[in-house]
Amino acid sequence: MADPRRSEPLFLDDLAVGQRFSSASHTIDEAQIKAFATQFDPQPFHLDGQAAKTTLFGGLAASGWHTAAITMKLLVESGLPLRGGIIGSGGEVSWPKPTRPGDTLSVSSEIEEVIPSRSRPDRGTIRVRSETRNQHGEVVQVLVAKLVVPRRAAAAVAN
Amino acid sequence: MADPRRSEPLFLDDLAVGQRFSSASHTIDEAQIKAFATQFDPQPFHLDGQAAKTTLFGGLAASGWHTAAITMKLLVESGLPLRGGIIGSGGEVSWPKPTRPGDTLSVSSEIEEVIPSRSRPDRGTIRVRSETRNQHGEVVQVLVAKLVVPRRAAAAVAN
Repeated sequence: MADPRRSEPLFLDDLAVGQRFSSASHTIDEAQIKAFATQFDPQPFHLDGQAAKTTLFGGLAASGWHTAAITMKLLVESGLPLRGGIIGSGGEVSWPKPTRPGDTLSVSSEIEEVIPSRSRPDRGTIRVRSETRNQHGEVVQVLVAKLVVPRRAAAAVAN
Repeated sequence: MADPRRSEPLFLDDLAVGQRFSSASHTIDEAQIKAFATQFDPQPFHLDGQAAKTTLFGGLAASGWHTAAITMKLLVESGLPLRGGIIGSGGEVSWPKPTRPGDTLSVSSEIEEVIPSRSRPDRGTIRVRSETRNQHGEVVQVLVAKLVVPRRAAAAVAN
């Protein structure tokens, strides 16, 4: 198995099932939650702490899409050093618990599958499971994403 | 099947498989794409049109999470009138094509499943397929989400 050195982004050839990566952290506050919700998810439980009390959330909670966006930021900046960047064709997302004001989120990822393309020798696909946790270790999001990753040989041949 | 009147948010009891909903539209520009990417997905293909040309995207493209966030805004504001709001526990998302600067997005949704809760008579779950299309009718995102929806009877009984 290749050594997942952080300083050098990885090719498909460097990745193997079971490899794990950890991100830095991001602390979310009430202002961030309300700013995101105002723009993209304007519902009372994401905008108004008082109104949120009588909802299913029982208090102010971040939009799930906000948790997803912060997860992406953490993956891009520190959590998943892939050559060519993090390019996803899609995935499955779930939010087992809400993200709350003051939560400090970090992401741990594990490679679940590595699939070289049969038709395109310059790339392949990986399946990555990324769990986003708060400061109590509670999982607030699980994302299983399919990503496109370039191959090392192709890079040497290209241009 | 209940009449899906837009002016009155719907209970689980009002929903049936096959029911369809359409949202208003949102036009995305380069400034929005770069602002979202700067905050949540700082990669060259979302930040710099010139740099994006040599990537898999072949030009500036919105973050998939930005397309997801705009989809949520359209669903909340006009696309899916649910009593209690749009509360998702998760779902599957895919991005068949990139969202580009100048694209005008709208969302069409179809109810795929309606499941009253066996343990909680006050609510149920629905599965909704939401397709986000650009002005050419091309699908840029497919989201199949599981949402929690309150029941009518429970609302009559509750407090």
